[in-house]
Amino acid sequence: MSDESTALNNRPIAVFDSGLGGLTVARAIVALLPRENIVYFGDTARVPYGNKSERTIRRYAVEDVNFMLRFEPKLVVVACNTVASTAMEHLTQTFRVPMCGVVEPGARAAVAATKSRKVGIIGTEATIASGSYQKAIQRLDGGIELHSRPTPLLVPIVEEGRGCDDELVHVALRQYLAQFKAAGVDAVVLGCTHYPLLKEAIRREMGGGVSVVDSAEETAAEVKRFLTESNLLCKTPSFPQYQFFVSDSSQRFLAIGRRFFGADLVNVREISPDEFFFAK
Amino acid sequence: MSDESTALNNRPIAVFDSGLGGLTVARAIVALLPRENIVYFGDTARVPYGNKSERTIRRYAVEDVNFMLRFEPKLVVVACNTVASTAMEHLTQTFRVPMCGVVEPGARAAVAATKSRKVGIIGTEATIASGSYQKAIQRLDGGIELHSRPTPLLVPIVEEGRGCDDELVHVALRQYLAQFKAAGVDAVVLGCTHYPLLKEAIRREMGGGVSVVDSAEETAAEVKRFLTESNLLCKTPSFPQYQFFVSDSSQRFLAIGRRFFGADLVNVREISPDEFFFAK
Repeated sequence: MSDESTALNNRPIAVFDSGLGGLTVARAIVALLPRENIVYFGDTARVPYGNKSERTIRRYAVEDVNFMLRFEPKLVVVACNTVASTAMEHLTQTFRVPMCGVVEPGARAAVAATKSRKVGIIGTEATIASGSYQKAIQRLDGGIELHSRPTPLLVPIVEEGRGCDDELVHVALRQYLAQFKAAGVDAVVLGCTHYPLLKEAIRREMGGGVSVVDSAEETAAEVKRFLTESNLLCKTPSFPQYQFFVSDSSQRFLAIGRRFFGADLVNVREISPDEFFFAK
Repeated sequence: MSDESTALNNRPIAVFDSGLGGLTVARAIVALLPRENIVYFGDTARVPYGNKSERTIRRYAVEDVNFMLRFEPKLVVVACNTVASTAMEHLTQTFRVPMCGVVEPGARAAVAATKSRKVGIIGTEATIASGSYQKAIQRLDGGIELHSRPTPLLVPIVEEGRGCDDELVHVALRQYLAQFKAAGVDAVVLGCTHYPLLKEAIRREMGGGVSVVDSAEETAAEVKRFLTESNLLCKTPSFPQYQFFVSDSSQRFLAIGRRFFGADLVNVREISPDEFFFAK
């Protein structure tokens, strides 16, 4: 193998999100591909994206990818369902770097999981309004009955540190998921990277026999498939490097991010707006 | 009266917030001062501010005021508790235009309302962490016992359109306010401009004999006092003009804002980032 291709293999996987949620995707990638170098960026100065317009989300997403490009990644993972739902086409048309979103892997897993052929999707306002999962699932299997519900409280619920046994979590899920249960949905897609932290409570609320599709895990599998097929897996047996960047206060990121990443976050740097916003 | 001073009196009151919440302040000003012209700005492209760092909030606040200055207001109302709590001193040191925040009026009303001399304050993470209300109340009366609690779910709860009879609202308030009830608090300050929409539910949860201090109303009273003392009240008996500006999607602002303003929002304009961000 030439030096050049070795160098390419050693380049990092770039993972970005509007904030903390994408750390669940980074965590799943680390678990599946423990040799890979990872650079993470969370746009914590402008989080959340899920209640913003498509135009604004697209603009932010382009700036996020521009920032990631300085690390010369071999792959950019759009670890934000809102961005993947509203800006994926715009991003792949704009940039040459290979990209992987969270929607397609989640949709594939949902189609594979459902037996009743009734799938439910939860996500932010923007994700649900975009119809991204609905379209991706219909492309795979036009006969599947789709139910969707924006669940905007779940992000702040997770960020506040509430766990699966909190009474308020139970009430929120009972309200949000009632229509899925009534309709006989047997596969629920977690269409937001914050939701894996509530997976157990969602599973409990939906009851036995219902699959809860975690798009973080599915996306990690997709990343592995892409790198394997492209012969881009990192082959150096050394310790991988993890770097984290945020656009606002690393304090909060450190405090809350740990639960998302499942390990202490080291190498966290706050970038100044001059370094990032309106990057050209 | 000279033409010049008449022109000054006719200038608008500028009201700004990170998003929609400040509309409750604008509404209270309209109710108390129905002749005044009002320009409102909501930074909906970067909302919320309450989970961001002081440095980032200060930067955003300076940009917000810079934008408002193009309307040559006679007074700028900082209708965002997060900004008033973390950036007020920075803003008054930076700009010459008279400014009025929401913290001092709320603190004064709380001191006047409490009989048990135990006051509770609820607000965003940034507002509570700043200790702004605590300091303002202590300056007025050092003997008052203070209790405070960040209540980050209440903003998304209100924005989702949940009303005072929603079960989840009841559970959230029961959890958040338990410590105030146990401590014998008899005045609760609504330290966020979203919270007036939950006033009834908060009153019900706290029980009889407890005052709920709405800083929107108190701020309107302060605005009236300032304009009266400075001889700046609008004296033209014509119809007042209301203008609304947002940095992201006026659609969402129109849909949700109505409940905050208590009337239809007309003259809403979405400003482009080039017109606004990093204004110098």
